[in-house]
Amino acid sequence: MRRTSFAHMDCSIARSLEVVGGWWTLLILRDAFAGPVRFEELQRDLGIARTVLTERLQRLVDHGVLERKQYCQHPPRFEYHLSEKGHDLYPVIVGLMRWGDKWAAGEGGPPVVLTHTACGGEGHPVLACRHCGREVGPPDMVAAPNGPRFGTNGTRRVS
Amino acid sequence: MRRTSFAHMDCSIARSLEVVGGWWTLLILRDAFAGPVRFEELQRDLGIARTVLTERLQRLVDHGVLERKQYCQHPPRFEYHLSEKGHDLYPVIVGLMRWGDKWAAGEGGPPVVLTHTACGGEGHPVLACRHCGREVGPPDMVAAPNGPRFGTNGTRRVS
Repeated sequence: MRRTSFAHMDCSIARSLEVVGGWWTLLILRDAFAGPVRFEELQRDLGIARTVLTERLQRLVDHGVLERKQYCQHPPRFEYHLSEKGHDLYPVIVGLMRWGDKWAAGEGGPPVVLTHTACGGEGHPVLACRHCGREVGPPDMVAAPNGPRFGTNGTRRVS
Repeated sequence: MRRTSFAHMDCSIARSLEVVGGWWTLLILRDAFAGPVRFEELQRDLGIARTVLTERLQRLVDHGVLERKQYCQHPPRFEYHLSEKGHDLYPVIVGLMRWGDKWAAGEGGPPVVLTHTACGGEGHPVLACRHCGREVGPPDMVAAPNGPRFGTNGTRRVS
């Protein structure tokens, strides 16, 4: 299925989705955050069709989100590592994890617990202001157009 | 297209994607964070097929992410508001925005600037430890299975 392209939208969210939108892509990235991934493992773990997995991996490599590295010469075998660009998707993955923990966890509760190694604090990280450090949500933030592209019709509250 | 269900996966990310995975769904939510949205506006803004938009909105209402409210009696007209469950997706949306700003912004730079109203600090919020408040990334966090469901094979570093 060829889907709509969002690359033309002057919106960073749309542009991100152009690269990492889609269930399979985000599940591949989830696995990659636990370490380098290999085709056969992903195929087994996700139960994804081989043609679809091939296409998704190639797309992530083309966009520089994953790097393909050969780990065996004979026979030639490859694994996929997150690049810096890929690592930068961590807040998205953690955001999905936290939301699923709160709103869709099964009877056993959250399947995974995250711990901050530096301070030993347990629990998923939160979204915080980069200046004052306080946790923030939609009512705390105002979105404004950057520069002249949207004209001068002011700010809008994102909530 | 009926897609694979991830609801059976014991993973909060997969369960989240079961509800909000997909490009259109996340773009609908992006718009909803700026205020209540109406069918015709969304259809015009996103250029999405009406049947697809109808299905996506219904799905978000069914899952309690959006709430449908009547704003006009004659003729009957409705708009969609984010519920608390919907608001909790803010970190995911901001994460996508930040990533797109850094890795896919056009020549004009980031299209939107966020400001924290309480402190006046400008710039997108970051992912921070809920205990010590420091900004964190994948190398700073360790993921461990919660409870006995994965056996006792210890922790794994998420990076």
